[in-house]
Amino acid sequence: MLLPAPTTAAEAATARLAASALARDGAAADLLAWFDELRSRSYTEVEQIPLDELTGWSTDPASGNIVHDSGRFFVVEGLDVHVPGGPVPRWRQPIINQPETGVLGILVKEFDGVPHLLMQAKVEPGNCNGLQLSPTVQATRSNYTGAHRGRGVPYLEHFTDPAAGAVLADVRQSEQGAWFHQKRNRNMVVEARGEVPVLDGFRWFTLGQVHQLLAADDLVNMDTRTVLSCLPFTGRGVRRAVGSGGDWFRDALLRSCVADEGSRHPDEEVLSWITRARSATDVQTRRIPLAEVDGWRRVDGRIRHDSGRFFDVMGVRVRARGREVDSWTQPMIEAPGPGVVALVVRRIGGVLHALMHGRVEPGFVDVVELAPTVQCKPENYSVLTPAARPPFLDLVLAAAPEDVRFDAVHSEEGGRFYHTRNRYLVVEVPPERELEHPDFRWLTLDQLAGLLRHSHYLNVQARSLVACLHSLICAPAAPTPEVSP
Amino acid sequence: MLLPAPTTAAEAATARLAASALARDGAAADLLAWFDELRSRSYTEVEQIPLDELTGWSTDPASGNIVHDSGRFFVVEGLDVHVPGGPVPRWRQPIINQPETGVLGILVKEFDGVPHLLMQAKVEPGNCNGLQLSPTVQATRSNYTGAHRGRGVPYLEHFTDPAAGAVLADVRQSEQGAWFHQKRNRNMVVEARGEVPVLDGFRWFTLGQVHQLLAADDLVNMDTRTVLSCLPFTGRGVRRAVGSGGDWFRDALLRSCVADEGSRHPDEEVLSWITRARSATDVQTRRIPLAEVDGWRRVDGRIRHDSGRFFDVMGVRVRARGREVDSWTQPMIEAPGPGVVALVVRRIGGVLHALMHGRVEPGFVDVVELAPTVQCKPENYSVLTPAARPPFLDLVLAAAPEDVRFDAVHSEEGGRFYHTRNRYLVVEVPPERELEHPDFRWLTLDQLAGLLRHSHYLNVQARSLVACLHSLICAPAAPTPEVSP
Repeated sequence: MLLPAPTTAAEAATARLAASALARDGAAADLLAWFDELRSRSYTEVEQIPLDELTGWSTDPASGNIVHDSGRFFVVEGLDVHVPGGPVPRWRQPIINQPETGVLGILVKEFDGVPHLLMQAKVEPGNCNGLQLSPTVQATRSNYTGAHRGRGVPYLEHFTDPAAGAVLADVRQSEQGAWFHQKRNRNMVVEARGEVPVLDGFRWFTLGQVHQLLAADDLVNMDTRTVLSCLPFTGRGVRRAVGSGGDWFRDALLRSCVADEGSRHPDEEVLSWITRARSATDVQTRRIPLAEVDGWRRVDGRIRHDSGRFFDVMGVRVRARGREVDSWTQPMIEAPGPGVVALVVRRIGGVLHALMHGRVEPGFVDVVELAPTVQCKPENYSVLTPAARPPFLDLVLAAAPEDVRFDAVHSEEGGRFYHTRNRYLVVEVPPERELEHPDFRWLTLDQLAGLLRHSHYLNVQARSLVACLHSLICAPAAPTPEVSP
Repeated sequence: MLLPAPTTAAEAATARLAASALARDGAAADLLAWFDELRSRSYTEVEQIPLDELTGWSTDPASGNIVHDSGRFFVVEGLDVHVPGGPVPRWRQPIINQPETGVLGILVKEFDGVPHLLMQAKVEPGNCNGLQLSPTVQATRSNYTGAHRGRGVPYLEHFTDPAAGAVLADVRQSEQGAWFHQKRNRNMVVEARGEVPVLDGFRWFTLGQVHQLLAADDLVNMDTRTVLSCLPFTGRGVRRAVGSGGDWFRDALLRSCVADEGSRHPDEEVLSWITRARSATDVQTRRIPLAEVDGWRRVDGRIRHDSGRFFDVMGVRVRARGREVDSWTQPMIEAPGPGVVALVVRRIGGVLHALMHGRVEPGFVDVVELAPTVQCKPENYSVLTPAARPPFLDLVLAAAPEDVRFDAVHSEEGGRFYHTRNRYLVVEVPPERELEHPDFRWLTLDQLAGLLRHSHYLNVQARSLVACLHSLICAPAAPTPEVSP
């Protein structure tokens, strides 16, 4: 019900997206061959270097912060965090401060009545495997105002000129609140007007083709996943276009897309729960010099926690072809793992609901956002008290294979995070398992879609899992579309 | 369309509020007599004192900040503001930092099928006229956790215990971004379960009775106005219950309450415009010690701008009966005026639209919120460049009396602002006056109601004017309700 009323126009728009999700003519093998061909032509070498060998970056002698000589891009600084009553009530940590809002944009165009997405095979230094599937545009403001000393950003004009196309989604969303201080990117989907030339390294995909690649490990990058989650891909139009889901799970997922199929909590109750959590939690954060972050120190050219856990700040030297500039160094965050990011789902009255966690992360702008049911690196909890062990982690880790509806390892953003991956899971529990907990609520896909039209509601991990849930709406093999009344 | 679909349940709820708005049995004279009787029994003396004669508050010798000895309530400190490209690109100013989220709550209960609101006649030191009509609860966290050394806050349990009633609205909203650093209060409307005793100083009002008082100067306080604006008082239910508005203006206002009557800009376009404004504006604010705020100085026991304009920080001594504690001193902000806060409205296709301004205020959490068409103190602009003169100010000041649909002077919050009042206006322009401007957009009441379910969208002045617009939906004299199909 947080979505628009199912008017004819809204239904038609979502039905078009559903048609795109059902269209899977290009076999996965064909797409992977395209990737391989590009990979063979691209050249990227990423070498770990000590932080004090970065060029163009330096450590400020007074604060210890790691800053770029231009004063732009981002700064690695410190954060003092106080969460009274939390399992760890007070800590200090390094954090990335990147105040500029970038653009993550996917360009859409209809071919033979089916909307296609213009995707890019892009190398980023943090990727384990070189190329990943990226949005049409993925640009910080420094990228496109020249601080990067690089080439212009192709297709950017479709996103910066409001008259250039029809906007399907345009919303600022947060990124990792554990590692970024209040970072937001603009998530955009724009339907192009007129001809769009396809440059080398770009290709038109149907939504169904992207969904197929999402099931593979490490192929669809984080920026694509978050933009996909903001697509208006729920509502009556999707349900009508897809017809019967074919099994209990998919039927429940389709019903979850439609407002009046019923939700466990009315919208006002969900919004009130979020308001209460934000008001009850007296989180205080304060930016501090990196030199004052105790418990962390420089060892072997990296900054790491004394326990060796959580994450490291480290440096890389990149030599690349096919990116804005050909050689550079930069600091990155490395959190090896992979971590576990899981959504527990269940059918309530035949409608699929996801168990969302009202989670505090120090970098959020508005205290609490909805996170997946589980989001952690299990090994971090060996240094914390048992009370800090996340709820439902053991349930997720012990799930029977037939209850795991989605399971793929995906990378976090390869421009800031080095080999930092998470296992993304959707785990179904039986309808009778209520799993009531004051910090968790069951929401439908329609309710999540309504919240995703606004900032400050779903964190980046939850948005990835919304995209994964969307990918399960259509059957894995292209079915014959049925139109139900 | 940002509102829920007009389901039977939502229609029924808004129809009940409409019934309350139509019920005006208690004549205004009767209500004013109740006020007068309370006023004769209450005793409040407010005396202006120099800032250095405050007791319990002191000026920190290092920072110059004005702080309470307990470290609670609020701090008067400094803010450094940088708005590149703005008419005044850089300035410093004093600002109130009050990180605690308070509760502003109205309790609702049905009598004879008509919902009533439990209102309070409350004295606040900043009021020009002593008592004003306040919400049931108006409490900072310091109030109810004892830092106030005062009595308990009556009726608070209805708002802090989720099981105590049905939540009609619960959303954190900003307050004056020119004077507060990121202040938010929780705006709540809760329908009580069970009996509710009426304490001295409290009384049940219909929505129609509160709307009648809103037309008078200085009677309905700011906290009431902002909570009223968050009531789900739009949608098909209101239109059906009220029936024909009776004249062109009210018909257009009623059609403005219903999503599918048509809006000048589709919702996605409005949201994208807000996202763009937030991303384009590189507003940088930094909290600084009050002592470093240049251009302002202590004169005659106050802090004022060298020009004598904008506002003063001053001190008061209060002696009161019928408030939490009987005598105290505190710093306040005084911005004499009154200022002009005006909404320009016009009929587009027979549907009333309000011209909203995407406005930057330094204290906002998310850069830009929607403000009224005009919000300023005209005399401040004599010290600024002519280019800084607000758009549409002259149009509003020159409006013919028959085009002024609402006109009343209201006080800003009397707990922080001393004799600080604004003239709230709704001015209609002819349908053909498009008044296109990149920083302004025409929105329907239904679109504003949809945004008001979330934080960060409408500033406090805009919310006051939404409440004023609601008050015009029902005719001034109680009409016979007509139910249209």
